[in-house]
Amino acid sequence: MILTVTPNPALDMTYHMSSIHFGESHRVSAPAVRAGGKGLNVARVLHSLGHPVISVSPFGGSTGNELANELMHSEVPHRLVPVQRATRRTVTMVETGGRTSIFNEQGENHSAKEWDALAQAVESCITGAHCVVGSGSLPPNADPSFFAELVNAAHARGVPAIIDTSGPPLLAAAKAGADVLKPNSQELMEATGDGHPLRAAHSLLELGAGMILLSLGEKGMVALCRDEEDGYHAGLSSPLAGNPTGAGDAAVAAVASLLSQEITDATTTLRQATAWSAAAVLMPLAGEIAANHATLADDVILRRLASTDVMEIECL
Amino acid sequence: MILTVTPNPALDMTYHMSSIHFGESHRVSAPAVRAGGKGLNVARVLHSLGHPVISVSPFGGSTGNELANELMHSEVPHRLVPVQRATRRTVTMVETGGRTSIFNEQGENHSAKEWDALAQAVESCITGAHCVVGSGSLPPNADPSFFAELVNAAHARGVPAIIDTSGPPLLAAAKAGADVLKPNSQELMEATGDGHPLRAAHSLLELGAGMILLSLGEKGMVALCRDEEDGYHAGLSSPLAGNPTGAGDAAVAAVASLLSQEITDATTTLRQATAWSAAAVLMPLAGEIAANHATLADDVILRRLASTDVMEIECL
Repeated sequence: MILTVTPNPALDMTYHMSSIHFGESHRVSAPAVRAGGKGLNVARVLHSLGHPVISVSPFGGSTGNELANELMHSEVPHRLVPVQRATRRTVTMVETGGRTSIFNEQGENHSAKEWDALAQAVESCITGAHCVVGSGSLPPNADPSFFAELVNAAHARGVPAIIDTSGPPLLAAAKAGADVLKPNSQELMEATGDGHPLRAAHSLLELGAGMILLSLGEKGMVALCRDEEDGYHAGLSSPLAGNPTGAGDAAVAAVASLLSQEITDATTTLRQATAWSAAAVLMPLAGEIAANHATLADDVILRRLASTDVMEIECL
Repeated sequence: MILTVTPNPALDMTYHMSSIHFGESHRVSAPAVRAGGKGLNVARVLHSLGHPVISVSPFGGSTGNELANELMHSEVPHRLVPVQRATRRTVTMVETGGRTSIFNEQGENHSAKEWDALAQAVESCITGAHCVVGSGSLPPNADPSFFAELVNAAHARGVPAIIDTSGPPLLAAAKAGADVLKPNSQELMEATGDGHPLRAAHSLLELGAGMILLSLGEKGMVALCRDEEDGYHAGLSSPLAGNPTGAGDAAVAAVASLLSQEITDATTTLRQATAWSAAAVLMPLAGEIAANHATLADDVILRRLASTDVMEIECL
């Protein structure tokens, strides 16, 4: 079983319309409303592929009730922890031409008691887990050590942990020895203060992380490991058109699937993560993955990266 | 007591942010969430000024629950009729510079039984009402005669009725002999197919309406009556800066307040409607009105309009 933890979930509302004219009124159809947040997307992808999974997150207020209701209908196994403050929303406006504008509420912090309850829910689910995934942001003013403690809780039971977050929580997760971290270039540079993504990734390995999966959007993905001198780059021969929202979550799902089977080598991980990520781009909503992810894995082009060449990333 | 009826209410979500960038992600704070829809805004304005009021509307789904909860906290007296389908949302994005983009969900139709329940709720509240207000859109595919029947129900008890709607329901309300209709130029032209707003307003009088209050935004308001040859225009010497959302609802509230006191003359109505409308522009949210509406009424400039001069409206 794979356990995903989403400390700051969201009720995702996606509106589709012909075009946006800022400063004007628009008539729109009802949005697609889904339980969202990165860890929930990871759980959806895994569940859709038949992997046993359980998703843990807080929920509060009427938006939280709506999230709980949608999650129940999705049939993704979950454990929800009630909190006082309302679950945040994200509002996504998709124009017919594909241009997508996203408005992410930041969410509100939980009380100390509620954080304890969330940690206890995680503890009670971690038994029997073969991999733990911690994904997404923390609410403003939350203790940045939440994901680091998740890594510690997993390792205390010999279970590997993947963390997909940003800022100080990303650094803390690296220090705690997360098995895999999946930042993008922007997140890496912001968290480390280093303007070179590859050098920034190496600094997370030095802090204690086992592997960095650096997502580059259309340009593919890079894997760097603590135990290997060289890194690897993977990509498709030509990028796929589609909806990039949730592509990173599909990559994390691929890694979780492999880790839960004790498959840890960098090239297999990178190939599968790239393929699942591309298969997610083909789908309209985050948390979904196209059936051809296995064939896409055969199309992934892998090459070795010299670990010393921090500038190489610029040329990808 | 004034009864307001809102057959297609909305959960209004208003986001404030520094600026919007097409095709990008934005971090935003939680929105102001309010029970919305034109009739609810009218009721809020009247309630805030101490007028006895009751607001009737349907509510459904989790958005409906949120609407009901907010309405309860607002202390505006209300009677809500449960329906199966979720209450629609409106999403408003206000940039720091004041540019406002609005996304209005159209809502979903109620079942025949639910329409009956709504009509019965209106019936039970109409006793003791001194004025009935019907405001806003109907859900798609609804019977366009809803507001006309509301006029009939009011008149059957000798109670005057104001209707603020658009399209075929506006024409039907005119035919039913609504005492006052409050369209804007665009709504008038669309409903009648006549490109001249004053001529279009006259055609609604010919159908049976008692008075047309034609709102012109910053340019003030025009009143035309079935029993008077001439019309009137009212405006302030200089337009007020602020938030125009809800200005029309404040105008309707002013008319309802006067009608409930059996004050029906066109110049008093026009002066108060213009003043309340201007006082609403000064407030950040629809349904609110600034305390200086009484002094603003003294500043309103009234002038006679020749009823035959359909072009005069163009020069205002």
